[in-house]
Amino acid sequence: MFFKCENLQKTGSFKIRGATNAIFSLSDGEAGRGVVTHSSGNHAAAVACAAGWRGIAASIVMPKNAPAVKCRAVEAYGGKITFCEPTVTSRAETAARIQQETGAVMVHPYDDDRIIAGQATAAKELLEEVPGLDAVLAPVSGGGLLSGTCLGAKGQNRQTKVFGCEPERADDAYRSLTSGVLQKQESSDTIADGLRASLAPRTFAILREHVDGVLLVTEQEIVEAMKRVWEHMKVVVEPSSAVALAPLLRPGGISALGLRRSSAEEKSRIGIILSGGNVELKC
Amino acid sequence: MFFKCENLQKTGSFKIRGATNAIFSLSDGEAGRGVVTHSSGNHAAAVACAAGWRGIAASIVMPKNAPAVKCRAVEAYGGKITFCEPTVTSRAETAARIQQETGAVMVHPYDDDRIIAGQATAAKELLEEVPGLDAVLAPVSGGGLLSGTCLGAKGQNRQTKVFGCEPERADDAYRSLTSGVLQKQESSDTIADGLRASLAPRTFAILREHVDGVLLVTEQEIVEAMKRVWEHMKVVVEPSSAVALAPLLRPGGISALGLRRSSAEEKSRIGIILSGGNVELKC
Repeated sequence: MFFKCENLQKTGSFKIRGATNAIFSLSDGEAGRGVVTHSSGNHAAAVACAAGWRGIAASIVMPKNAPAVKCRAVEAYGGKITFCEPTVTSRAETAARIQQETGAVMVHPYDDDRIIAGQATAAKELLEEVPGLDAVLAPVSGGGLLSGTCLGAKGQNRQTKVFGCEPERADDAYRSLTSGVLQKQESSDTIADGLRASLAPRTFAILREHVDGVLLVTEQEIVEAMKRVWEHMKVVVEPSSAVALAPLLRPGGISALGLRRSSAEEKSRIGIILSGGNVELKC
Repeated sequence: MFFKCENLQKTGSFKIRGATNAIFSLSDGEAGRGVVTHSSGNHAAAVACAAGWRGIAASIVMPKNAPAVKCRAVEAYGGKITFCEPTVTSRAETAARIQQETGAVMVHPYDDDRIIAGQATAAKELLEEVPGLDAVLAPVSGGGLLSGTCLGAKGQNRQTKVFGCEPERADDAYRSLTSGVLQKQESSDTIADGLRASLAPRTFAILREHVDGVLLVTEQEIVEAMKRVWEHMKVVVEPSSAVALAPLLRPGGISALGLRRSSAEEKSRIGIILSGGNVELKC
């Protein structure tokens, strides 16, 4: 197993990749009006940080139940937070209002080609470093990371399979891809707080074409995988990251992927995107 | 600040350096009788692992209140545990009895030149990678790591200062070096469970000649430094590791070291040995 440690990225998650690409793709005229986004946390910090690098204003809409550590990070990077109700509708409405009032450019967390292209660089780098990977696993929420992972991995090696990993309690990507119709996640009380969003038309279209499957995991499996990473790899990951390792820790979890190499003689080589490491410790 | 992440070492701490050097220094005749040691945990796992690499038996005396995660690690590496009372006397007596019964060679956790030379390689590597360090900080318990750090760091760069860091609640090294007489630590209820041993004649002699000071930290400072490392650096360290960062997080903590470079224009460059990352998570 080969781990891409996006928890060690600037701002503590892969989100800085897409945010930087989107914000530095703006014309000077667009950039001058600032940017706005809505996010439960990691995209928020990334947009605030990348906007700071470009020297422009960032308005961040966050649900009022967002973890305090993620709010503090946004403020530390110079972002201006507006709190909203913890629903998809309230997020979008609040961001739209700010957009209208200020003229700021919306930097959507995943329904944006520049964001997807940015997130794709994680898998691209991983495949450049470990060219022969049989599969790459990444968590899926809105699908920005997973669709980017499909493009980044298969762009390097067409034989590499890509699997999304999703909590059973927030299984909209699984349902969308199984039914062929974009499904919404209405409620989602999973410990993986970064995986509560639903696919967007853009990410759904990429995943329908390229992803090789979505693997569902239980809350218990998420906690056990997270504990395994903390105790054995000595790196701090957030629950959403552990979702991408959890399916491999089951008995028969690796052979269930149906990879070319999976015998005892020729072991499969699997990449796992550890998406972020932003957690708040109580002590 | 430059961190030497010994938590990422094999067996999760710097102890594997000394254990490997000691065990691979044995003659075939000595090695054939196996090794014995006493340790609260990290040295135990290291000796079990290095003995496994050499293919010889390892008997490990552990206090019966040692963390379960450390006992499991010793067993996983093939070590044979004998539990003793959690006192220095009981440890030494139990190990001596096994030594007599089996003829095994004692691999002392720190009062051994081969162990000290092995631990010295951590600072040596750090100085090779970052040659201009003004200071290196390491935790001190029995003094194997700290005396090795003095030799390894000053062997690379005589200008580099070396400081030991110690919990106020287990301050025997501070008292020994201040008084000039080797002091014992009678009781030590610090959260830094790896730092409860006392200096030995061999480590005391090296430290008297080479160490530039011992910095004491409170339990609160240890917890805060550990939280800082977990949350901001995203690596898992045990409390003993955090002891070496804690003095630098105080207001004025860096200038208190009295380093050559410590102005705003020319900032000091400080190395910190994060000694290990073996913790047991409750979740």
